[in-house]
Amino acid sequence: MRYLGKQEIEDIAVGAALLGTGGGGDPYIGKLMALQAIEDFGPIKLLSLDEVPPSSLIVPSGMMGAPTVMIEKVPNGEEAIAAFKSLEKYLGQEIFATMPIEAGGVNSLLPLALAARLGLPVIDVDGMGRAFPELQMTTFYLDDIPAAPMVIADEKGNSALLTTINNVWGERIARVSTTQMGGSVMMAIYPMQIEQIRQSGIKDILSFEEKIGKTIRLAKANNQNPIEEVLQATGGFELFQGKVSDIERKTVTGFARGTASIEGYGENADETLTLHFQNEHLLAKTEKRLLCVTPDLIAVLDAETALPITTEGLRYGARCVVIGIPSHQKWRTPKGIATCGPGYFGYDVEFQPLESLIRLKGAVK
Amino acid sequence: MRYLGKQEIEDIAVGAALLGTGGGGDPYIGKLMALQAIEDFGPIKLLSLDEVPPSSLIVPSGMMGAPTVMIEKVPNGEEAIAAFKSLEKYLGQEIFATMPIEAGGVNSLLPLALAARLGLPVIDVDGMGRAFPELQMTTFYLDDIPAAPMVIADEKGNSALLTTINNVWGERIARVSTTQMGGSVMMAIYPMQIEQIRQSGIKDILSFEEKIGKTIRLAKANNQNPIEEVLQATGGFELFQGKVSDIERKTVTGFARGTASIEGYGENADETLTLHFQNEHLLAKTEKRLLCVTPDLIAVLDAETALPITTEGLRYGARCVVIGIPSHQKWRTPKGIATCGPGYFGYDVEFQPLESLIRLKGAVK
Repeated sequence: MRYLGKQEIEDIAVGAALLGTGGGGDPYIGKLMALQAIEDFGPIKLLSLDEVPPSSLIVPSGMMGAPTVMIEKVPNGEEAIAAFKSLEKYLGQEIFATMPIEAGGVNSLLPLALAARLGLPVIDVDGMGRAFPELQMTTFYLDDIPAAPMVIADEKGNSALLTTINNVWGERIARVSTTQMGGSVMMAIYPMQIEQIRQSGIKDILSFEEKIGKTIRLAKANNQNPIEEVLQATGGFELFQGKVSDIERKTVTGFARGTASIEGYGENADETLTLHFQNEHLLAKTEKRLLCVTPDLIAVLDAETALPITTEGLRYGARCVVIGIPSHQKWRTPKGIATCGPGYFGYDVEFQPLESLIRLKGAVK
Repeated sequence: MRYLGKQEIEDIAVGAALLGTGGGGDPYIGKLMALQAIEDFGPIKLLSLDEVPPSSLIVPSGMMGAPTVMIEKVPNGEEAIAAFKSLEKYLGQEIFATMPIEAGGVNSLLPLALAARLGLPVIDVDGMGRAFPELQMTTFYLDDIPAAPMVIADEKGNSALLTTINNVWGERIARVSTTQMGGSVMMAIYPMQIEQIRQSGIKDILSFEEKIGKTIRLAKANNQNPIEEVLQATGGFELFQGKVSDIERKTVTGFARGTASIEGYGENADETLTLHFQNEHLLAKTEKRLLCVTPDLIAVLDAETALPITTEGLRYGARCVVIGIPSHQKWRTPKGIATCGPGYFGYDVEFQPLESLIRLKGAVK
């Protein structure tokens, strides 16, 4: 058990944005909300998985919708509380703690803000180890744990408690409701016993995010190469260096979808990388080479600072380094690939582990 | 207090379809479900408003969505029970009885089927005195009674419990969820204390429907003119006689929308009536005259039998008589007109009471 203060929040926000692979929400908003909550209610209690009493009810929290919308429509904090109260009332059981459902600028930080406000601990675990755009794309789903009953709530005071026959139906109904509610909502989802989370979650994710953020911060302070330090901290590989030359982005059916072109320089001078995203970066390839494929992680970092850039933060002319990080083994199973591999998103490529792509195509290490 | 058996169901189905003004769902499906429920569980107990104990919790039930969809996707009965159980659990109070939310082929009969299955009484009241396409179009809404918490449930086993800031938001979120759930769902909505219903409901509506159905049945048996008998029983006016010559109908955003053209004969030989509908008939006019405008009731009856024809039952060549019935006074208030007058539906006409239109334009009495 330990307490998270302002420095920890700053570091977690950076690491979460990196693992958010372009999505998972704007890190600035998530951070502000968590910092404000600490200011108002004091530090946040973080428990590791083995510190939670048996049979405790844990409810992950976060936002659902297009991050592009949330920038304009900042949550007021009451939505998440309403969602929690409603779920608690429905289940007739007290919620012991919350946790993030995914790693991402907003969705790693919102549970911290909520926990501070409600005086609950946060558990150091999530259900993705990265960010993904749909509700069923969790390691819980891979183990047949239902997302329902779940509650989504908007900033106006509307909420919907969904009980669905499976997680894909949960995603469908929640998605259209989210769009109707204004494009982004807060959610309380996948209510679970701690035992289920121990078996199915990605453990120590908040600590991992903190480590990444701290690495980048200290590299700068110590005049080290921050990209190299990040690769070491994450077990990732450098894939491409370039300059953003084109971005096509639209918010459709509740998602921020599009592509970005990154013109290579240095070792990549004769190539252009195309990055495909749907909230998150899902596919990176050049004219010649396939570089990285979902569920493996693709992060775009500022070439200078190594700070992660979200899809909505991609700006024309920005110099960046694209890195790949192998996903958790749970995602590389047949069910994992079927759930969030390239085929699910409509990309006409087969999943190949990042490590093989690196070996085969000679991507820059 | 009295019991409703098979004959009563048959008569109510006919009267409900007439007051359903073309919408409110297919009377055949509603009737079959109610008859089957009586077969399985025995007659249904009908209570008048003054027979209900004080503070009883009453929950109206019915279907939401496009009637054109429901013909293909018959409810199995479990959806409504799921919706009731979910609402009861959320409210933490036992539901004393159900009632229809509107008059219509399906929505007058489904509460009877549900009541039989659950062993609950039905209250002789509704919230429209006719059918309307949207959830906030009730006399309860006119008196500021919230539609939420409400539950919608589909035949697959998905359900959504909505708590909304007002009834228009309830309509919006429920509508997109309904479309996603396959275009029609069962709902439990407007949970109320009996005292609220006494003040705001349209009383004795099921008995009124039964009277209309019985009138048509007996007219046939006694060789009377059934149209004349119907006009007498309902206080309605004959507006037009003709033959259906054209129907344009599409199912969009969860509604069956369109127009029908009816070529006049007899006294109306030189005119064509255009009927505008959105689930329900909302506007009837010819090249020369405005005949009837929502919220007043427009019903299309078979010229021979006086049996009501729903919008989806309108067939090319069908000979019919169009009648108008003055709506309940609650609908003719400024809030009533704003809620479901012609302006709300996008028709460029002012509401004029049926009786004035009859006087001014010399429509056939």
